[in-house]
This record gives sequence, structure tokens and C-alpha cells, in this order.
Amino acid sequence: MTSPIARILKDAIRTIPDYPRPGIEFRDITTLLGDAWAFRRAVDELVQPWAGSKIDKVAGIEARGFILGGALAHQLSAGFVPVRKKGKLPSATVRIAYSLEYGLDEMEVHKDAVKPGEKVILVDDLVATGGTAEAAVKLLREIGADVIAAVFVIDLPALKGADKIRALGVPVHTLMSFDGH
Amino acid sequence: MTSPIARILKDAIRTIPDYPRPGIEFRDITTLLGDAWAFRRAVDELVQPWAGSKIDKVAGIEARGFILGGALAHQLSAGFVPVRKKGKLPSATVRIAYSLEYGLDEMEVHKDAVKPGEKVILVDDLVATGGTAEAAVKLLREIGADVIAAVFVIDLPALKGADKIRALGVPVHTLMSFDGH
Repeated sequence: MTSPIARILKDAIRTIPDYPRPGIEFRDITTLLGDAWAFRRAVDELVQPWAGSKIDKVAGIEARGFILGGALAHQLSAGFVPVRKKGKLPSATVRIAYSLEYGLDEMEVHKDAVKPGEKVILVDDLVATGGTAEAAVKLLREIGADVIAAVFVIDLPALKGADKIRALGVPVHTLMSFDGH
Repeated sequence: MTSPIARILKDAIRTIPDYPRPGIEFRDITTLLGDAWAFRRAVDELVQPWAGSKIDKVAGIEARGFILGGALAHQLSAGFVPVRKKGKLPSATVRIAYSLEYGLDEMEVHKDAVKPGEKVILVDDLVATGGTAEAAVKLLREIGADVIAAVFVIDLPALKGADKIRALGVPVHTLMSFDGH
């Protein structure tokens, strides 16, 4: 949080006021992704605690988690597992419902996306309430994954999503925090 | 096409018969992405023609192009630009309509996603009719990008999509071809 690199990475995030509706400050990660140096450093920082460890797969949550997940998998020489919105994966899946701000949605993962016991890191751009990431952890465990960590560029600690993931027994690693929601 | 590596990568693609509807053989790239060795080699092969070149940005088409694009950007030490379905990007965008099999859809890119003259490689998992990639090239040029190549893991040459992109003056590089559509 307090390292010079974390400060520079935080400055690469663009805040969009009143998006998607009045009163919300949207944290736009595209400005970080578009900055070659910041993107590379963010990827390095996200995987740093597992440098030298054998990671089998990186699971990314659709859609921004796909961008980071592709890069993390490449950096770790791991495979990539897409966690997708329902109806997008072509082979046999397991599915889980999860709460959104308004109502429910469902996400899926291919049943054969991991082998039992494989070590998986879950990634998304941001953790807010943690509902999506919690559902993803449960899905990955259902297909036999050993979810060794969940990593996010941005934490919104007021919403306690990281605590929700830690309560599942999954370590959480984030690069920066913003106040509010 | 005929190299031993291309053959191994092709074997890592799963074909799903009659998906999403009868008569279609769906080429499922998730099995390649999930194989750490195949994923890494595919990324290496996709960027090989530009090894040592200065690439400013990799643009990925939502959603599977995000996975490959994140990895390509990391491999090339480039920034990443998301080309998204309409309504998903929070800042000022340019938008273009394009034809799908049934009807029209629209995609967007942030207006400030590239600086004028920046060298950009476009990536998606598969080129079929090329309508989506053609629209993405036009969008990227509208914001000033020098689109130096479009790369895809899979080509369906019967649908002539790669020809459509080449007709725009953009070199196309693919790793494998499948018959049919």
C-alpha cells in the first residue's frame, strides 16, 4: 500500500465520477492496462508472493479478469481458466448463482478446467462486496481446485469483500485501496 | 501451419459438435488456454513475427481476445487496449456498428486508448467472417492507431475473414486452420 510502486500504480487508475450512476466514483483500470510499464509492474506485484511457487492455473473472472489473468498465467507459466457468465462456455460446466447489487446472476466454469488438487490463483481487477469472487472460489473448489489465493488490483475495503474471501480460507492480495464504494 | 508446434497446438483445441446449434463444429480454445505449455507456445508463436519490434499496444476483442491480449501485451512489454461491446467502457469512446450472423451489434474503444501513430497489434482467438476484426481495425484507426497486424489462433479460411482484414492493408498472422465454419 505504501510502497513507491503502489503509489505510482494507484496514480495510473482513472476515476470517473458519477459512473455508472450519480454518487459512484468508478475506478477505471483501463488507463493502468494501457500503460506498458504500469501493466507489467502490476502483474509482477500481483504474483510476487508466489514467485518461485508452482502454480498450475490462473482463473480469471469475465471480463476484466481475463486481461489480467492472461498476463498472470503467462508470467507464472501456468494455464488459464475462464470463469464466465452463464451460457458462454461450450462444454460441460458447473454453475453457481450469486448476488449482484440488484438480483441474482449465474457464472460457470468447465467441469474439466482443473485436475483435482491443482493449485489455482483467482484474479479480477477489483474486489468490492466480494460476491462474485466468493462464487468463483466455490465453483473452482467444486471442480477440485486448491485455490491458493485471490488477487485483485483494487480493494474497496469499506465493502469488506476481501474479508469475505479470507473467511473462505483463501489468502487475498491486493495492490491498492480506495475509500468509498 | 505445418510445423510440429502448430500440429501440437492444433491438437490442444477441442471441437464441440453441434454447438451452439446443429451442424456447427465449435472450436473450443479453452483446452489450449488451460494447458500451460500450449498457452505459452501459442503466445510465443503469435508474436514471433514482431519479436524485437517496438509494439506500443495490444488490442484485444472482448471476451476471449482479452485473455490472449493480456498475455501478448505482457510478452511484448506493451500496454493493453480493450475493444468492448457497447456500454461497457466508462470514459469517452468511439463506437462502430458491425454485422453479426443475425443483425447488427456495436463495439467501442476509449478515445484516448492510443496516442496518434502508436503501433498496435489486434488479437482475437478466431477469425471467421472477419466482421468483428474489421470493425475493430476501423475503430483503432479512428483513434489514431497504426494497426500493424491482426493475429488469431484459429483461422476458418472458408469464410475468408483473414482476406477481409488483409484488404484493409493489415497483415494477418494465424497459427492454425480448420475446414468448415
